[in-house]
Amino acid sequence: MNYTTGKIKVRYNETDQMGIVHHSNYLKFFELARIEWLEKLNMPYEEIESNNIILPVVRCELKFIKPLIFGDIFFVKVLCSKKPTSTIEFTYEIYNDNNELTTEGKTSLAFLNSSTRKPSRCPKIISDLF
Amino acid sequence: MNYTTGKIKVRYNETDQMGIVHHSNYLKFFELARIEWLEKLNMPYEEIESNNIILPVVRCELKFIKPLIFGDIFFVKVLCSKKPTSTIEFTYEIYNDNNELTTEGKTSLAFLNSSTRKPSRCPKIISDLF
Amino acid sequence: MNYTTGKIKVRYNETDQMGIVHHSNYLKFFELARIEWLEKLNMPYEEIESNNIILPVVRCELKFIKPLIFGDIFFVKVLCSKKPTSTIEFTYEIYNDNNELTTEGKTSLAFLNSSTRKPSRCPKIISDLF
Amino acid sequence: MNYTTGKIKVRYNETDQMGIVHHSNYLKFFELARIEWLEKLNMPYEEIESNNIILPVVRCELKFIKPLIFGDIFFVKVLCSKKPTSTIEFTYEIYNDNNELTTEGKTSLAFLNSSTRKPSRCPKIISDLF
Repeated sequence: MNYTTGKIKVRYNETDQMGIVHHSNYLKFFELARIEWLEKLNMPYEEIESNNIILPVVRCELKFIKPLIFGDIFFVKVLCSKKPTSTIEFTYEIYNDNNELTTEGKTSLAFLNSSTRKPSRCPKIISDLF
Repeated sequence: MNYTTGKIKVRYNETDQMGIVHHSNYLKFFELARIEWLEKLNMPYEEIESNNIILPVVRCELKFIKPLIFGDIFFVKVLCSKKPTSTIEFTYEIYNDNNELTTEGKTSLAFLNSSTRKPSRCPKIISDLF
Repeated sequence: MNYTTGKIKVRYNETDQMGIVHHSNYLKFFELARIEWLEKLNMPYEEIESNNIILPVVRCELKFIKPLIFGDIFFVKVLCSKKPTSTIEFTYEIYNDNNELTTEGKTSLAFLNSSTRKPSRCPKIISDLF
Repeated sequence: MNYTTGKIKVRYNETDQMGIVHHSNYLKFFELARIEWLEKLNMPYEEIESNNIILPVVRCELKFIKPLIFGDIFFVKVLCSKKPTSTIEFTYEIYNDNNELTTEGKTSLAFLNSSTRKPSRCPKIISDLF
């Protein structure tokens, strides 16, 4: 259960005055990867939300090994190794165009009912994938 | 019909690798000013949205006179001179802590019904202010 | 002198609670388009900056015709019709995947010496393209 | 060695279509808190950078207990309990206006020479504070 994004290019606005990608942007790169992956599984995130489920991030961890800079090309590997319960866990690796590992991360997201904001079980259509 | 925000400090993440505030952030500063101002008028934006009205930006213009840099303190002056119809227009000026004009702008926002996304008239409670 | 980007997908973090792409993000989409275009012209932005020139936005205008929403695929057409002087002007059109025009814009950027922040002429290698 | 920010208001652009603050923004709130705190210690971040030192984030962790939503007022408590070496560690707590803990986090930042990007010792003026 893993997926690798296509090549993504660092956007100018993602840099900060240190001349590197601001660390907050990596959470956006992780999100983009897991959403693309759900889509590949025929489980577009729009559909999850239209089924009254939201999937907010409840925990995350990031480790920055090498900065990405403007103009860098990178890709994200995302892995989901555990069968989801009321949460779903992903691990991530970002590689630059020289295949150097630049960033590692983990996120845990909770399935919530979008009206009540109460925990909900992982939709069967997702858990059946495991 | 005008309002001046309190002092706001440039955040590190708002800079880019040119060492200045990325130009896209000024639209956020304008937004922050008009929302604070609506609140001062007892018209919190949350309440507008809870009345099934959304207020997306339909036009904007920005003129950058002097960049803001990290650590700068600034404030925003916002002015609404015309009685709103199905749109509401604001003009903005941003000043740094030396009272130098750094940025000018205009935005036009449309009152839309949040379900149909069709134009709607300015709520009476706002138009009555003019 | 025009260029059309490849297809770009709206990222989740680009949405706001109105359920549409926050208007500030369009300036990032315009930037991305003009940078890709300079690159196609063999004039990567990194090289401009490494020649001690920065190119901040000094004016911009945006017109929002139809919102982009999460999951939308779009592309940006960028056009530079006037020979640059100490500024360079671009116009933009964003189209969604149904080829509907969603957004129009203009930006004017100034060539500045990165140390002195004084205006500088457009590098010959760029003006020669016109 | 701890510091509590003043009250901060959630900005509209910080929300996403789930109607909550996008999780990537919390790293910006943490950053804002530690920078304000360094400033209170007479160690403005601008001065650190002008001494040829940059301080990128090398690790971070976030735990989301309760979402912040548009209009929420919050403050950040930042704590630095260990004497810095070539890295400096902060822990954070964010509270909403009802004094409910909404978010916890940790960041580890590395002192690097801004030209060589090699690790550097914590400047004496900072380590002397411990």
